[in-house]
Formats: sequence, structure tokens, C-alpha cells
Amino acid sequence: MSSLHGDSIVIDGLIIAKWDRSIFEDMKKGGLAAASCTVSVWEGFQETVNNIADMKKLVRDNAELVTLVRSTADIRQAKKDGKTGIILSFQNAHAIEDHLGNIEAFADMGVRIVQLCYNTQNLVGTGCYERDGGLSGYGREVIEEMNRCGVIVDLSHVGAHTSEEAILASKKPVCYSHCLPSGLKEHPRNKSDAELKFIADHDGFIGVTMFSPFLKRGNEATVHDYVEAFDYVINLVGDDCIGIGSDFTQGYDKGFFDWITHDKGRYRSLTKFGPVLNPEGIRTIGEFPNLTQAMEHAGWKASRIEKVLGQNWMRFYDEVWNV
Amino acid sequence: MSSLHGDSIVIDGLIIAKWDRSIFEDMKKGGLAAASCTVSVWEGFQETVNNIADMKKLVRDNAELVTLVRSTADIRQAKKDGKTGIILSFQNAHAIEDHLGNIEAFADMGVRIVQLCYNTQNLVGTGCYERDGGLSGYGREVIEEMNRCGVIVDLSHVGAHTSEEAILASKKPVCYSHCLPSGLKEHPRNKSDAELKFIADHDGFIGVTMFSPFLKRGNEATVHDYVEAFDYVINLVGDDCIGIGSDFTQGYDKGFFDWITHDKGRYRSLTKFGPVLNPEGIRTIGEFPNLTQAMEHAGWKASRIEKVLGQNWMRFYDEVWNV
Repeated sequence: MSSLHGDSIVIDGLIIAKWDRSIFEDMKKGGLAAASCTVSVWEGFQETVNNIADMKKLVRDNAELVTLVRSTADIRQAKKDGKTGIILSFQNAHAIEDHLGNIEAFADMGVRIVQLCYNTQNLVGTGCYERDGGLSGYGREVIEEMNRCGVIVDLSHVGAHTSEEAILASKKPVCYSHCLPSGLKEHPRNKSDAELKFIADHDGFIGVTMFSPFLKRGNEATVHDYVEAFDYVINLVGDDCIGIGSDFTQGYDKGFFDWITHDKGRYRSLTKFGPVLNPEGIRTIGEFPNLTQAMEHAGWKASRIEKVLGQNWMRFYDEVWNV
Repeated sequence: MSSLHGDSIVIDGLIIAKWDRSIFEDMKKGGLAAASCTVSVWEGFQETVNNIADMKKLVRDNAELVTLVRSTADIRQAKKDGKTGIILSFQNAHAIEDHLGNIEAFADMGVRIVQLCYNTQNLVGTGCYERDGGLSGYGREVIEEMNRCGVIVDLSHVGAHTSEEAILASKKPVCYSHCLPSGLKEHPRNKSDAELKFIADHDGFIGVTMFSPFLKRGNEATVHDYVEAFDYVINLVGDDCIGIGSDFTQGYDKGFFDWITHDKGRYRSLTKFGPVLNPEGIRTIGEFPNLTQAMEHAGWKASRIEKVLGQNWMRFYDEVWNV
């Protein structure tokens, strides 16, 4: 591990792995100070509470590797202790159901990031895989309460119309935690130059992903294509509001991809990924040091690398989490 | 009670009263052979199952007055026995939640009519009190399953965009179970001439309501204004596809109106009705014979009166319920 990687606070803004000890071991190998870990996608309130309890037990049972974090101070402490901080996050506001009070309850449980919609319509708005009628009235109330409770609004899988209205409605900056530019590849999940500029112009944040179906070279991509995607976004919005959002699905098999690509996990098919292969050089979480190397190889200055690896996420987290 | 009223099958296509014995007694006094009774508005799955169980117990406990009906044969038997047939219905698909299987479960429990949305956005589409992005992909799956299970699609409180798409998506005719024409009064809940013609042109059904906030003369209205509304709709679409959908809220106080006029029963206010007073002459369910009198007074032929009182609903119910 280069000293730059090892000395930096490295944060992955989106991992949706099959949670077990081996993932935590790989996080340590990868030098992650923190990772935003998905604990709800299609689940309702109770199932999500169960997922959170399962994750907390797993964290307790592996306390020498990981620790639950609720603040950037916790992340700094995790880094100091050589552990990875686990940030609880949702990829769908579905778990909030029809009770705004569930937002504070989840915040109390440690949830720090909630994506408003996952691919399709819910009570809040509409996802990126169907026609999008925009943010609902309830959605505006949800954002207001998330702002109050210090929960980050994530828009990665959210439709363009709902996203734009959410960016305008939120009193705190919001993010695309894991996305790629459609300037490199057209895809319903990728964001246009205008969309990327819009969120940046509103103090928002862009986590860049490397999920191969959205990459220009798909399964042929290497870690250098991932850096190319970062460079594309930096050319648009600068290097102060971007970070990592890998979307690692480590440990999952086809059943998982079937689940996430069907509405509510079981109904109509929304998209077909085919086989998903992470870019060569960063196929696993443990290979994160290669990303830093590739950034150096691309001629990035150390200050830019440190910002993109984690400093930017830390500043953004502080802006929203501190209420 | 005139012999025409007493001899006719009289059906009220929408009552949302505070269910108790006094309501059932008034149904008998009013000569109702059947009434579509709301047992879910903002409730989720489990609460709605509880509501259904409560209603079934209330029906059992008052078996000399009412009986649960699942078919038009049951309604004819109820009429023969001098009882009112209770049709279980929802004013919101919210209770279906995110499981299509809940539709058949509710159909098994006796639910025969489900309104897709109540005033605001849900997983299926959007109600009439907020911007309406149309029917969702899940909404199309819901309608397909309702068609299969013989559950009527109701669109009274549904937005114009979602309604139009639902009318086109459904393989069985659908209804506005309780609405008024905006030709008599502009209101978000009222339907334009074009909308009324559109549903009728697609073999759909229109139940005419008398809810005073939507009536031209509001709380000044009498039963003759209610007949005027019927006449307006008949002039547009004829007298074969219309019936009664009173929207009686008998027994309820201000707390109920607060509940129904706030999103999900508790959040932002969607509309303000002020005091609601049913039209003079038909202030209570027991006064239904006055409606028949008023129809006669308006010069309606007996054959038209019989159709509008209940024959039309019977034909429509048969078309959708028989699967």
C-alpha cells in the first residue's frame, strides 16, 4: 500500500456487498476508513429494522475490523484504530413507508444516507427506470424531515425529474452517491453533463461508480477507465465535490441481481445487466490501493487524490449530518 | 315508500359512514338492497384486514339487517330477504402495499371494489389533489391482477392522468363510483365532460355523488340538485352506465374530515371542506325514497329510475365480478 493511500482517509460512498466477515476483512485490506453500506433496497419498515439489527450484530461480532459510525469524528477514530467505519444507508425511501416519524427512528438507529427512490415509483417520487412524474407532496415532507434529522438525500437511482425537484427542495446539499456520466455512456442510470453540473451548482456531491454495465467499456474496463470517469466528472465540476461510490456487490450471485433488477424485487424486469465484472485492478474491495496508484499514474496531484479518496466525503458528511 | 322505490333494487355505490347498527337500520329504512362500504382509506395491509374483520363481525352481529355480499346473486337474495347487502370496498390501493398477492387475498376476503389512489401519490399512481404523473408500471400490474381477481377499479379520487391511463390499461370496465361533473362546478374532485364521456366510451361506469362541497349550491342544495347532477351526466352519456354513489359520511365528526383531507391522514392539508351538509331531503341514508320521488318529480320514466337506482350497478358488477 502506498503511503499516500495508507495515510489518507479513504471512503467508499456506496457498497452493497453480501455482508459477512470476509467483506470486512477486504475493507481492511483495501484501507477503507469508512464505507456507506446499503441495508435496505426493497424492504419495508420492519424488514429494514431487522436488516439493521443483523448488520449491527455482525459489526459487534467483528469489532476488531469494523465499527458503526454516526459522525465524521467516529470515522476519524476508526481510521486511527485501523478499523473501517460502517455507515448505515438505504437505497430506497420505501422503508420509511407512510410515516414521517420513521425517519427520525432510522436516524436514531444510525442511518445517515437514504436514496429517495430505487428504480421505480414510490410514495416520494420515481426512480430512473420508468417515466418520472417528479417529487410528490409527501416527498417534499420527507426531504424536510431528512434535512432536520441530518440524513443525506441520495439521488443515484432516482429519475431526472424527481432529482431536479429534490435538489431544489432540499435545504441541505444532496448527492448522487454512485453514478457515472452519460457523456461516456448513455444509460438510464447515468447522469448527463447538465445533471452533474446542476447538482454541483447546488452544493451537491457526486460519488463516481465503476459498475461495469454503466461503464463505456463494460466488462473490458480496468481501474484506468474508472479514473477516466473521475476525470470526466472533474472536468465538469472540479475536484471538490466528488468522491468514490464504487457500488461493490461483492459476494452476491445471480439471485441478487434478479432481485435488484425487478420492481420490488419480484415483479416486472426493469433492466438486464448480464454478467457483471468489476474493472480489472479493482475487482475486489481489497484492491482499493490500486485506485490510488491509477490516480497517481494519471498524473493527479496528491492533494487531488486525498480529496477524492475521502476528504470531500468528510466535508460533505459534516455539512449534512451536523444538525 | 313508493312502490317503485320499494320494488326496485336500490344500490348505493359508495358509503363511508361510521359503521354501526344505526347505519344498518338507516339502510333498511332507505330501502337499500346493497351498499358499497369503504373499509380502507389510508390504512396499510394489516390495519385494513383488521377493519374488514371488524366490519364482518358487525355484519354478523346485525344479521337481521345486513349480510355480506360477494355477487349480484347475493344482492338479489339480500333484497328478497329484506336485508341490505354489504359490499366491501377500498378508497385506496395503499392497503395492497408492495405485494400483488394481497389483491387476491383481499378478493378472497370479499373486497369487490378498490380505488387506485386516494387524493395523493401512491405506488400505483396519483390522486386528484396533487400533480399527477400518471399510472406507474406497478400500477399496470395491479390493474391486471385486479382484472384477474374480479375487483373493480375505481377512479373517483384519482388524478386525470392516472385515470385516463387506467381506463386504457384495464381489460375490464372501470368506474368513477362517486363523482360530480365539473360542468356544474369546478373542483379538483369533479370530472370534466370529456372525462365523463371518455370513461363511458370505454364501457365504464359513473356513480353520481351529492357530497355538498362538490355541488354547485353546496350546503344550500336539495335532493333536486342531486337529480339535476344526474340529469347533467345522463345528457352526456345516457342513462345506462350511471348509478348512485352518495358518499354518505353519516355518523362522522370533524376528526374524520381532518383525517381524510390530510395526506395519509396526518400530514399536509390537501383541501378544506368546511361544514358538510347533505342536500335537504336526503340528509340521511334513510331518506333515499325521497330521491326516487325527486326523480319522478323531474319527469323521469320508471324504467330510467329503476336503471339508475340499481339495475345499472347490477349489470356493471356482473361484468367485472364474474371471472
